[in-house]
Amino acid sequence: MQAQVLDKAVMRTMKLSSVFTLMESGPVVLVTTHDGKRSNVMTISWTMVVDFTPRFAITTGAWNYSYKALRKTRECVIAIPTVDMLDTVVGVGTCSGADTDKFAKFKLTAVPAKRVKAPLIKECVANIECRVVEIIHRHNIVVLEGVAAHEASARKERRTLHAVGDGTFIVDGRKLDRRRQMAAKIPAGV
Amino acid sequence: MQAQVLDKAVMRTMKLSSVFTLMESGPVVLVTTHDGKRSNVMTISWTMVVDFTPRFAITTGAWNYSYKALRKTRECVIAIPTVDMLDTVVGVGTCSGADTDKFAKFKLTAVPAKRVKAPLIKECVANIECRVVEIIHRHNIVVLEGVAAHEASARKERRTLHAVGDGTFIVDGRKLDRRRQMAAKIPAGV
Repeated sequence: MQAQVLDKAVMRTMKLSSVFTLMESGPVVLVTTHDGKRSNVMTISWTMVVDFTPRFAITTGAWNYSYKALRKTRECVIAIPTVDMLDTVVGVGTCSGADTDKFAKFKLTAVPAKRVKAPLIKECVANIECRVVEIIHRHNIVVLEGVAAHEASARKERRTLHAVGDGTFIVDGRKLDRRRQMAAKIPAGV
Repeated sequence: MQAQVLDKAVMRTMKLSSVFTLMESGPVVLVTTHDGKRSNVMTISWTMVVDFTPRFAITTGAWNYSYKALRKTRECVIAIPTVDMLDTVVGVGTCSGADTDKFAKFKLTAVPAKRVKAPLIKECVANIECRVVEIIHRHNIVVLEGVAAHEASARKERRTLHAVGDGTFIVDGRKLDRRRQMAAKIPAGV
């Protein structure tokens, strides 16, 4: 795993009031953790925005090796990959940190985050540093609060991936604008 | 509101083991309720799969008029609209059932469901009949269990919409196949 410093030219700080817009459309994400010794990363497609503040829910549990570190440290990073990273997304999701250094295997560059020990992923279009608010064990729901976020603003490929769940993935297509009609429903600062 | 019967030629019953694949990619959905007197519908983009069984979470609360009926009846239908329904999705999301018959206003056809009193929406590509498992009030998370589902299998337009949250919407683009690589992670019956 190659560690680097956070390069402002590569990753621009995002205002927290806009961060929910990274997640609302339902992209498959990579979630990083750091257990005190090693960094790990998992692929998660079961995610939801729960508040604009921002607050997110993800579904995970002991079946994911990362869960132990997430539960212990109560920190993670939600990193958002794009379509050019599909095979990384699939690869990360089909091996385990129990026996694999996934950062090395998939040539992901770990960059130190500002407010959590879990690393950012340099190759991703955005990274959200998160703290665990609560784990709702009976439903395997982890409620997260975004505490800082970074966007690779100069990155050209920005289309995200949406997992269907049957082994196929949908790529972002056209973008349709209904900002005027939705104006009353869009929170300030977005 | 025009009520019809469930036409098998229009809506085919889906096996429950595949239903999570309707939701995993994160489409914006319409959620119908029936409060004992009237049917209502709201637009929700904060949703998550929480189990293959299928089980879903949605975020809603008293700020949505439908929430009262959802809480009282503990039933709803998640209906999945497609790109041709964008202005319905936006319209439904920007007025209230408190003073509007949204089925009439947006020319949506309510079709009786099999296992819940909330109606199916004939115009949607799929409908999932749901019962409330639990409302986690402190996070406004409603955990739902799908009890029946129907797919408009002959419908040509199948591309769903993904809300960004800033008034723009992403349309489903290309579909990429990684079934072979994902085989070990795909549950039986999908």
